[in-house]
Amino acid sequence: MTKKIFLYDTTLRDGAQTEGISYSLEDKLAITQKLDDLGIDYIEGGWPGSNPKDILYFQKAKKLKLKHAKVAAFGSTRHAKNKAEKDPNLQALIVAGTPVVTIFGKSWDLHVKYALRVSMEDNLAMIYDSVKYLKKKGKEVIYDAEHFFDGFKDNPEYAIRTLQMAEEAGADCLVLCDTNGGSLPFEVEEIVANVVRIVKSPIGIHAHNDADTAVANSVSAVKAGAIHVQGTINGLGERCGNGNLCSIIPALNLKMGLEALNQKQLAKLTAVSRYISEVANMVPNDHQPYVGLSAFTHKAGIHVSAVERKSETYEHIAPEVVGNHRRVLVSELSGKSNILFLAQKLGLELDPNKPETKEILQTVKELEHEGYQFEAAEASLEILIKKATGHHKKFFDLKGFKVIVERRNEELVSEATIKLFVGGELVHVAAEGDGPVNALDSALRKGLGKFYPQLAEMHLVDYKVRVLNTGAATAAKVRVLIESQDQDKIWATVGVSENIIEASWKALVDSIEYKLLKK
Amino acid sequence: MTKKIFLYDTTLRDGAQTEGISYSLEDKLAITQKLDDLGIDYIEGGWPGSNPKDILYFQKAKKLKLKHAKVAAFGSTRHAKNKAEKDPNLQALIVAGTPVVTIFGKSWDLHVKYALRVSMEDNLAMIYDSVKYLKKKGKEVIYDAEHFFDGFKDNPEYAIRTLQMAEEAGADCLVLCDTNGGSLPFEVEEIVANVVRIVKSPIGIHAHNDADTAVANSVSAVKAGAIHVQGTINGLGERCGNGNLCSIIPALNLKMGLEALNQKQLAKLTAVSRYISEVANMVPNDHQPYVGLSAFTHKAGIHVSAVERKSETYEHIAPEVVGNHRRVLVSELSGKSNILFLAQKLGLELDPNKPETKEILQTVKELEHEGYQFEAAEASLEILIKKATGHHKKFFDLKGFKVIVERRNEELVSEATIKLFVGGELVHVAAEGDGPVNALDSALRKGLGKFYPQLAEMHLVDYKVRVLNTGAATAAKVRVLIESQDQDKIWATVGVSENIIEASWKALVDSIEYKLLKK
Repeated sequence: MTKKIFLYDTTLRDGAQTEGISYSLEDKLAITQKLDDLGIDYIEGGWPGSNPKDILYFQKAKKLKLKHAKVAAFGSTRHAKNKAEKDPNLQALIVAGTPVVTIFGKSWDLHVKYALRVSMEDNLAMIYDSVKYLKKKGKEVIYDAEHFFDGFKDNPEYAIRTLQMAEEAGADCLVLCDTNGGSLPFEVEEIVANVVRIVKSPIGIHAHNDADTAVANSVSAVKAGAIHVQGTINGLGERCGNGNLCSIIPALNLKMGLEALNQKQLAKLTAVSRYISEVANMVPNDHQPYVGLSAFTHKAGIHVSAVERKSETYEHIAPEVVGNHRRVLVSELSGKSNILFLAQKLGLELDPNKPETKEILQTVKELEHEGYQFEAAEASLEILIKKATGHHKKFFDLKGFKVIVERRNEELVSEATIKLFVGGELVHVAAEGDGPVNALDSALRKGLGKFYPQLAEMHLVDYKVRVLNTGAATAAKVRVLIESQDQDKIWATVGVSENIIEASWKALVDSIEYKLLKK
Repeated sequence: MTKKIFLYDTTLRDGAQTEGISYSLEDKLAITQKLDDLGIDYIEGGWPGSNPKDILYFQKAKKLKLKHAKVAAFGSTRHAKNKAEKDPNLQALIVAGTPVVTIFGKSWDLHVKYALRVSMEDNLAMIYDSVKYLKKKGKEVIYDAEHFFDGFKDNPEYAIRTLQMAEEAGADCLVLCDTNGGSLPFEVEEIVANVVRIVKSPIGIHAHNDADTAVANSVSAVKAGAIHVQGTINGLGERCGNGNLCSIIPALNLKMGLEALNQKQLAKLTAVSRYISEVANMVPNDHQPYVGLSAFTHKAGIHVSAVERKSETYEHIAPEVVGNHRRVLVSELSGKSNILFLAQKLGLELDPNKPETKEILQTVKELEHEGYQFEAAEASLEILIKKATGHHKKFFDLKGFKVIVERRNEELVSEATIKLFVGGELVHVAAEGDGPVNALDSALRKGLGKFYPQLAEMHLVDYKVRVLNTGAATAAKVRVLIESQDQDKIWATVGVSENIIEASWKALVDSIEYKLLKK
């Protein structure tokens, strides 16, 4: 039987420390449900003793119907001056009413001296008493040994003593934390191997990414004997983040022959990663390993034909296994196979030998030469292919537009006017905006809205400008990339011109036509 | 003496494969200079045989005055059907005229069969002949063993044979590439240790980040005996990126007792990372280890007071060592040392205790909050400092400007009018241009030229646009970066606004004032 590794998610607690993140109560409950659905074993919901908002979360979380996951409440060992049964922090953990309680204690003598400022013996007693008390209350107790690796490097005997205190008091799992995130994987592997030889309890790992090695440190700890891994979805967490479960889980499952999730659960990983980005309102990292948009994206022509012959040649895992998919970029270096692959994915049959296919290739090449780039603008490519294959229709006829930006003394005004034929009518509209492109966008929607009410369902979510031949300075060509969204999906379009207004116009029109062609 | 590790940067070649990146020739030359200044040993400039743009780069790169770095041209082993001396790819490498040539060959039998489709013996001959030929031409030859780790796992004897071919032919360094990026650090460590036992040549590592372990894999390879590390600034590269030199270098220097850079060079790392983000027009990752804005950011509370008592308690390294700095979120203290450092570099004495210095810091802080970034726009910062210290004068007074972009049927016209007071005169001028910013630029020069004839000596060489809060779509804030040049030097200026015309205007005015303030 495959060895089981236990997953402990702290997206809701350590992940909430990420600069810029602030979950609502509803967010936290929805994420809990999602993590349970993914197959996470433990979900750390919050710190009831330090964050009053989290108290409410635990009240609500009790009512959630979870299939598998156990919710954990997080807190510290008792205060030096309190008895365990009178310690407000430990009381808050009991009140949270979770089956699992995780408490952290100090392993590093430096911290005992400079942060906690108690004696070395008092610290040991604090650990023992706190774990003992929680066990007496019937909790599954996970002990987080804060700064364990730094502590071990400084004073191994003392660091081990702190673990033994928790073990003797009955802790169910001892988690070695690299709190400052500065350890390297071979150090972690060696130290975990040492610990596993000395203590009997199950060992866990909790890594931070300050040395850019949190994923490596986590899997190295497992290799050395840890069976419990703490981390966050997308590596959320303060400073450089925590160990990224989206990378750790596939390594355990697919590269180390262990079972962190089952196959069906693993295939949900990409969706969960994107869901968390959405709820946390963080821009997803396209280059994120395994689950990122670009993780299985191929550019060069040779690569693509080799990947299609045998995917292992250029892919370390099959993207579908983690719920991701292969993308082929249509770029300068691309050959026919890239475009055919894309057309097929779009459900548009393209016969490689028909003249229309050659024509599309020729057009794409010419546009790329002009500075177009379709790799990040598949909707514009789709419109281009549809035009060439007779699947496109004209929705309006532009007669002209005019954009004026005027600064008079301190006031700045942007205004756009558009004249177009649509549904047999001549429409002439004007709008102001925050800048010339925004004014143009507003005017276009104003002019078309009456004829195509479905445009109200879409909105622009991203606008990027890239200057192409920067050497030409302000006369340089610019490429504008626009991302739009409706209730179903996100699509991207592109426009190129020496004139930024014109480039934006082209991308705007493609974006709107794509929406109108949908369904 | 500390053991030296050689750094081989491929930001310009593998990094150029990043989805969305497209360097201009000027960008590539500027980056080369920056990497040399950082202390990189080898700079891989491009692939002359596959990318015609790169041929021009190598012509220009020969004229750069580099302090330390050697430029390398990249290519593949000869084609199966060609003799080395007739192979166009190898010829292109010779024509590039670099002291160093890097060629890659196949180590993995699967690739020989499915990608290359030649016999196993032919592949060995291709490696041997190509290296031999380049050595005969007097080149320092670096051999990149593509897919080495996958090859070794599949067929270790053959993988080693390919290395031995390169070694026998005289290669100066054998670089083991984890091309698909799927290896874990303990595998890399073990395989490198194996190789080091068998071959005598210096060994290098080239890691990709598909398993989220490229940094760990790189340092693990060094631990096992590699002395040459390939990577990119900020981990740029296709799919999930390459080994991130911004994380690898500090690990080697600060955690492994090796010398990749000297202390002074290491302190430039953060600035170089931000410079590359700016030039590549990639949004910097605030959470990037070591060099990210949030890498040493502490939230209020226990952490902060502990950090202030003893920084090791919550920081794995001192941030200044890599040119970064500690941030404390409550007080929002940012950039003081950067500003003083920059002012000093510009030859402007700033007393940290004088009120004018505090005022500058306050202004910079406010502007940064608005989206300004002075790392890549020192001329704007210099103007700001000169204004605050009374070294600035007013050259003209703007009354207003108006920019019109009009499209009528197929014709597109951009026109700008500007009204300003200069030398006691009211000047009202109009000009057309290739786009609105170019029209504005032309009109401004037209209005000022009579009064400041030295403006004829300068021209704009670069124009970049970055959308800041992309979520706001076409109403988003944009940052415009302009580079200008005269007979002596190049300078960069910045402007930020929701309106791209206004942002461009600000950067244009700074650029012209900088020129007028010179001498």
